[in-house]
Amino acid sequence: MFAFRVTATDGKARTGTLHTPHGPVQTPLFMPVGTQATVKGLTPAELHQVGSQIVLANTYHLLLRPGPELVARLGGLHHFAGYQGPWLTDSGGYQVMSLGHMRTITEEGVTFRSHLNGDLITLTPETSIQVQEHLGADIIMAFDECPPYPSERRYLEASLERTLRWLERSVRAQTRKDQALFGITQGGTDLELRRRSTRETVRFDLPGYAIGGLAVGEPKEKMFPTVALSTDLLPEDRPRYLMGVGHPEDLVAAVGLGVDLFDCVYPTRTGRFGYALVPEGRLNLNSARYKEDPRPLMEDCDCYACRTFSRAYLTHLVRAGEMLGLRMLSLHNVRYLHRLMEAARAAIREGRYAAFAWAFAERRFAGHPPAWFLEALRAGGHEPPGD
Amino acid sequence: MFAFRVTATDGKARTGTLHTPHGPVQTPLFMPVGTQATVKGLTPAELHQVGSQIVLANTYHLLLRPGPELVARLGGLHHFAGYQGPWLTDSGGYQVMSLGHMRTITEEGVTFRSHLNGDLITLTPETSIQVQEHLGADIIMAFDECPPYPSERRYLEASLERTLRWLERSVRAQTRKDQALFGITQGGTDLELRRRSTRETVRFDLPGYAIGGLAVGEPKEKMFPTVALSTDLLPEDRPRYLMGVGHPEDLVAAVGLGVDLFDCVYPTRTGRFGYALVPEGRLNLNSARYKEDPRPLMEDCDCYACRTFSRAYLTHLVRAGEMLGLRMLSLHNVRYLHRLMEAARAAIREGRYAAFAWAFAERRFAGHPPAWFLEALRAGGHEPPGD
Repeated sequence: MFAFRVTATDGKARTGTLHTPHGPVQTPLFMPVGTQATVKGLTPAELHQVGSQIVLANTYHLLLRPGPELVARLGGLHHFAGYQGPWLTDSGGYQVMSLGHMRTITEEGVTFRSHLNGDLITLTPETSIQVQEHLGADIIMAFDECPPYPSERRYLEASLERTLRWLERSVRAQTRKDQALFGITQGGTDLELRRRSTRETVRFDLPGYAIGGLAVGEPKEKMFPTVALSTDLLPEDRPRYLMGVGHPEDLVAAVGLGVDLFDCVYPTRTGRFGYALVPEGRLNLNSARYKEDPRPLMEDCDCYACRTFSRAYLTHLVRAGEMLGLRMLSLHNVRYLHRLMEAARAAIREGRYAAFAWAFAERRFAGHPPAWFLEALRAGGHEPPGD
Repeated sequence: MFAFRVTATDGKARTGTLHTPHGPVQTPLFMPVGTQATVKGLTPAELHQVGSQIVLANTYHLLLRPGPELVARLGGLHHFAGYQGPWLTDSGGYQVMSLGHMRTITEEGVTFRSHLNGDLITLTPETSIQVQEHLGADIIMAFDECPPYPSERRYLEASLERTLRWLERSVRAQTRKDQALFGITQGGTDLELRRRSTRETVRFDLPGYAIGGLAVGEPKEKMFPTVALSTDLLPEDRPRYLMGVGHPEDLVAAVGLGVDLFDCVYPTRTGRFGYALVPEGRLNLNSARYKEDPRPLMEDCDCYACRTFSRAYLTHLVRAGEMLGLRMLSLHNVRYLHRLMEAARAAIREGRYAAFAWAFAERRFAGHPPAWFLEALRAGGHEPPGD
C-alpha cells in the first residue's frame, strides 16, 4: 500500500515516487497546508489544477474544531473536505507549542488550553495517533516535541529523548494499517544531538522520516548543515520530509541535499498578505508600484491568475481588500512552488541539478547567492557549472 | 449594436434577448454586483460557469479607486477585470447618498468626501457619464438622486424634477456610441409622482429604463404597486431594470409584473455572512444545525459547492472563518438566482409562469405566501392555478 521508489539521483538530490492508498506522489514535492482541512481559499479542483499531489492538515486545529469523531463520521478528511488525493496530518506537537495556552509538558504528554474556548486538553502520543486515525490521512506523524530556538543543550537533549519515548508509544498506539506513520527527528541544530536523534529514530524502521525542529528561527547557516547531516543518516530508501520549510531558496538547497517532501503555509500566507512569488523573490502588490503594470505576475506562469489578470488589476484587488486578490495570489504562489519542484524533478532526472540550482540562484539572488546557499549546494555535490 | 427583442410573454411577464457589444443576454436576468470590478470572491470563469451574463460595477467605488483613467488605460472594465462579457455601471448617484460623507446636493451635482481618504469630490451628470465612458461598460446609467425612504412628498417631487434635468444633461454628455444609456425613474412609492417621473423619463426615447428609488426600506406593500405602475407605463420594446432587488421572492413577483433586469449584492453578501439560498429561504451555516449534515446545500443544484461539499464541511468552513466557505456560499447563491431566472424564462416561454410562481411560493413561504406577493402575481395576470 505504501512504497517509495527513488528513480533517479544527481549528487545527493533524488527524485522518486511515493505510493499511497490515494495515489502516487512524485518527489521532491511541496505539500500545501490545509490547516483547518482547507488550503486557505482554494478548492480541491484548483489544487489539482496547480499540481498539488498531497495536502497537509493540522491535527491540533481539527481536534479543536470540528473534532476528529465528526470528521470520521463524515468519511475522514478525503470525503469530508472533498479532496480525494493523499493527505498528511501532523501530530499536533508543533501547534500545541506555538498556539496552546498554559501548556504543561510531562512524560505523559502535553496539557494545554484551547485557543478557541479555553478548554483544557491533553494530547499524548496515544491520543495524537487516535485523532490522526480518525482524521484518516494517508501519512500520519509521530507525536513529538518541537523545542524553540534557541534552547539550552540540556533541554534539547532531554526533549529529544522524550520524543524518542513518545515515538515508541506512537508506534504502539497505531491500529490502522492503511496509514503510514513517519517518525520525526529533533535535536535542534546541535549536530551531535541531531545525529543521536536520527540514529535512534531510524531504528524504528518506519516508512518515512521527518526532520523536525528546524525553520523555527535559527540562521540558515545552522539549519542547512543540520539538514545535510540528517540526509546522510536517513535511509536512502525512505522518504525524507523537512517540516515547515517553504521558501523557494530553501527548497532548492534542501532538494540538493536529498530532501523529498516539504510543507509550509508560506505560499498561501504571503499571498494573503498581498505578495506574489516570482523567480526574483516577491512582488509586493500592496504598494503602488505595479498599479499600471499590464503584465501578468510572471510572464511564463500557466496559473489561472497569470493567464487572466494583470499586475495592475491584482494590485487593485489587494489594495481594495478584495477576496479575489488574496485567492489569486495564493493560487499563483502554490503553483509557483509546484512548478519549481517539477523543474527540480526534471533536472534531477536529466542529471543537471547543479545547473538548475545555480540558474535559480542567479535570478533569485541577482547573481549574489548567500554563502549558506552555496555551501548547501556544494554539500549536495552540486558544484557551480563551469567550476 | 443594441437591440432588445421580447420573444415570449405570459401575462405581464416577458422573456427576451438584449443584444450588447459584448454578446446577448437572456432576460429576465439577475446581474451580480462587482462593486470594485470584482464580484466578491468569484473569478470571471466562475461567473460564466454559474450562468452570469452581465456584471454590474459601481462608478462611485471605481472613481475613488483605482480611478477611471487607469481603468481606461488598461482597456476598460472588460480587459481590466478579465470578464469579457457585458458590463453595466451605475451612475454613482445611489452610492454617493449611502456612502459619501458630508454630501451637498445642488443643481450642479453632488459634492461629497471620499469614504477612503476624505478627498472632496463633485459628481455631476457630466462627470458621471465621463467616468462611465472611461470604465467602458456596455450599459451605463443616467446620473440620478435616490431619495431615502421615507421622504417628504415635496422633497420627492423636487428631487425627481432635478433627476429629470440631470437625465437631460446625462444624455447630452454622452459621447460614446457603443454604450447604451438607461434612464432611471424616481418618485419613491408615491404613485402620482412615479407616474410623472416615468412619463417624463420615457420621453427621452432611451434604449432602456430603470425603476430607481425602490428597495430602500419601504414595505413590499408599497414597493410592488409602484413596480406594477412602472411596467404599465414603460415601453414594451425596451428593457426594464429594477435596481437593487435580489431577494428570490422579489424577483419572482417582479418578473411576473414584466421586469427584465435586476441587480443586488444580496447573494454574495448573504453568502459572506454564512447563509445559503435554498427554495425554502436560507440555511444559516453559522449555526451548529447542519454541522453533521452530509447533504449538499441543495439536492438538485449543479454548482461546484453542491457537487463537491456537504453542509457539514461548509458549516465547518464558515464557523472556522475560512475564505473557501464564504466563496462557496457566494458561488452557490449567485447560481441559485441564475437558475431561478432560467426557470422563469422557461416558464414564460411555455406559458406557465403562474404555475411556476405559485410552486415557488409554496416552498418559499411554506404554503402561506404573504398578501403582497399574491397581489403582485395577480397584478401580473398570474392567477393561482386551479382558481
